[in-house]
Amino acid sequence: MEKRVYLDNAAATAVRNEVIEEMLPFFDIEFGNPSTVYDMGSRVKASIDDQRAKVASLIGARPEEIIFTSGGTEANNLAIKGIAFAHRKKGDHIIIGATEHHSVLNSARFFERLDYEVTFLQVDEYGLVDPQRLKELIRPETILVSVAHASNEIGTIQPIAEIAEVCRDKNVFFHTDAVASVGNIPIDVKELGVDLLSLSGIPLRAPKGTGALYFRKGLRLMPLLHGGIQESGRRGGTENVPGIIGLGKAAELTLQELPQKIRHVKVLRDKLVKGIIDSVENIKLTGHPENRLPGHASLCIQAIEGEALVFLLNSHGIYVNTGSACASKALKTSPVLVAIGVPPELAQGSIVFTLDMPNTEDDINYVLEKLPIVVNRLRSMSPLWGKRETVQAG
Amino acid sequence: MEKRVYLDNAAATAVRNEVIEEMLPFFDIEFGNPSTVYDMGSRVKASIDDQRAKVASLIGARPEEIIFTSGGTEANNLAIKGIAFAHRKKGDHIIIGATEHHSVLNSARFFERLDYEVTFLQVDEYGLVDPQRLKELIRPETILVSVAHASNEIGTIQPIAEIAEVCRDKNVFFHTDAVASVGNIPIDVKELGVDLLSLSGIPLRAPKGTGALYFRKGLRLMPLLHGGIQESGRRGGTENVPGIIGLGKAAELTLQELPQKIRHVKVLRDKLVKGIIDSVENIKLTGHPENRLPGHASLCIQAIEGEALVFLLNSHGIYVNTGSACASKALKTSPVLVAIGVPPELAQGSIVFTLDMPNTEDDINYVLEKLPIVVNRLRSMSPLWGKRETVQAG
Repeated sequence: MEKRVYLDNAAATAVRNEVIEEMLPFFDIEFGNPSTVYDMGSRVKASIDDQRAKVASLIGARPEEIIFTSGGTEANNLAIKGIAFAHRKKGDHIIIGATEHHSVLNSARFFERLDYEVTFLQVDEYGLVDPQRLKELIRPETILVSVAHASNEIGTIQPIAEIAEVCRDKNVFFHTDAVASVGNIPIDVKELGVDLLSLSGIPLRAPKGTGALYFRKGLRLMPLLHGGIQESGRRGGTENVPGIIGLGKAAELTLQELPQKIRHVKVLRDKLVKGIIDSVENIKLTGHPENRLPGHASLCIQAIEGEALVFLLNSHGIYVNTGSACASKALKTSPVLVAIGVPPELAQGSIVFTLDMPNTEDDINYVLEKLPIVVNRLRSMSPLWGKRETVQAG
Repeated sequence: MEKRVYLDNAAATAVRNEVIEEMLPFFDIEFGNPSTVYDMGSRVKASIDDQRAKVASLIGARPEEIIFTSGGTEANNLAIKGIAFAHRKKGDHIIIGATEHHSVLNSARFFERLDYEVTFLQVDEYGLVDPQRLKELIRPETILVSVAHASNEIGTIQPIAEIAEVCRDKNVFFHTDAVASVGNIPIDVKELGVDLLSLSGIPLRAPKGTGALYFRKGLRLMPLLHGGIQESGRRGGTENVPGIIGLGKAAELTLQELPQKIRHVKVLRDKLVKGIIDSVENIKLTGHPENRLPGHASLCIQAIEGEALVFLLNSHGIYVNTGSACASKALKTSPVLVAIGVPPELAQGSIVFTLDMPNTEDDINYVLEKLPIVVNRLRSMSPLWGKRETVQAG
């Protein structure tokens, strides 16, 4: 096999072997429909509930507070729409962070068509929202605030407990999109004080097409997928049983190994960042320098195009991202980088590394060997490089 | 292994080996995110598009007319909500069949909360809707009609082409829930003349959590899952890649083998029905005698409880259903049987057999050996059996 250094774990991960093994029997042996009353069905139903308890444990929730979904995007849609439709009588104002994922952003925008009002909460140069500013934006008709726990693009971790406290004081529901954080840092929904939290299987190295929404017990939510009584009536449709089994197993393993994972990816990430600073001039690190995901490095490299860099690194077997995975084909300049005030010409050279357990020190050494060569090659072809101004890394 | 005669293939199927084999590499080798621009992503993107073509072929559609979903329920939700939200300016009236699946029924009901009006199209004693009656119900403000292609509960196949023609003449969108029919009978969306059609992976022996919505090219649809630009902007969220690969492979195999499957299950089904008529008195076959799914048998057995029958057959290793899978825990009397005029005390004894390729003549012989014993045992305990009136099978 050719050399492959995969550093785009926020976009996708290889499902771990233990997870695949756990899933396999549920394709063709334990294949009963969990809604049926005979033994083949009730065994599967019990297995699903075991996974519900495991996912709940990972985030400090109760099992009955977990709704399995087809991924982070469905969880975000269910949170925003579930609250907005169920609590329309209370109000019609929604506040979301200015740098939210498209699934939150476009779910909120959808309600503008239905005559709700959406306010965007601005962020500072590190991508942080200001809880005091949020307090000023909340009005009597505000029903929901949604701010992501961490950014997949710039790595910044928000002060979620403070934001949640503001919302609680104002009697407004608070949702956090924790797709980028669950599996990468410890999470406790009770400590955070959130009402709803979305997670995805991808950072847990579970299969694509898996995720869950935490919703605080007692909270009223309109289903997004209307149908049968699956998920206590909150999400219709025959369950993706193998996917749920995989998500549960991955959650269990993640809970056990998270401290080890954090140490591992942080050491590699710090080595990577230091190495890049030492070998590539005129770059700017993005996101918060300390309050950031441990395996996450993001920067902008002057006078190059991020997509060209991705392609050229690809030719060396190195896989990185430039901007958020879902948006990478849709947009030229990242709206997240615009929101934190990165000038467009610098924002074009965005590059994002997201590390996971399978990464090794050799991976980092290989990137540090190839990246300066690739950057120099691109810069040598760039008309912008001749006209450069010096950029500070910090 | 204990004896297992599985005759509940409408509720769930064992994923076929060829499908599992095809999916496996996409969990941990070809695991790239299809939205990324590097080779690992674009290879996966190309594989998804191959599956799109295969699913399209199975139903006579074009690849760009297929949206992959997390199952039949999501496809039904997307169809109803996608049309109702996108075409609100045209009108606010929706017509659905009286015996629709909960995912169609509850999606339509959801719009009653949003001040739309929903009309239910009644069915006759076989579960058939009358296209002429539909014509009378359509009003200028009608935007959508939804009638299932076939019933998982009573097997009846609707005159979809005639219904579609009525809708086309009246300039109203027509959706059919074909979850029970795609994979069991030949389907051509152009011949049927439908605007939207939902399908599920389950009857194709693909994994749970897979499905698709066909939508006629050019038709405007509001996404159900807002997010990134996946599925041409019509369904956000990282794709369930292994599931889609499985669905595509299953669609390809189904297209090749459908004539053989139809012959196989029809012979077994006919033997089963004849055997039951000959050995169990006071039963009533439900659904249309000819216009029905080839592997589907449904009947009501006087003076017994369907659920008790399911449990007792279960103890003999026989797996059957009583009413639609999603509703089986929620309801005592099947609304479908009520709609076709089966008296409640007879409807309680509902039993549904759904056959697939893995079933054998031995399976049928075993059921015909055990069923009369089980029915007699239940009847011997039933107070209703002493007070019975004679019921005609036909």
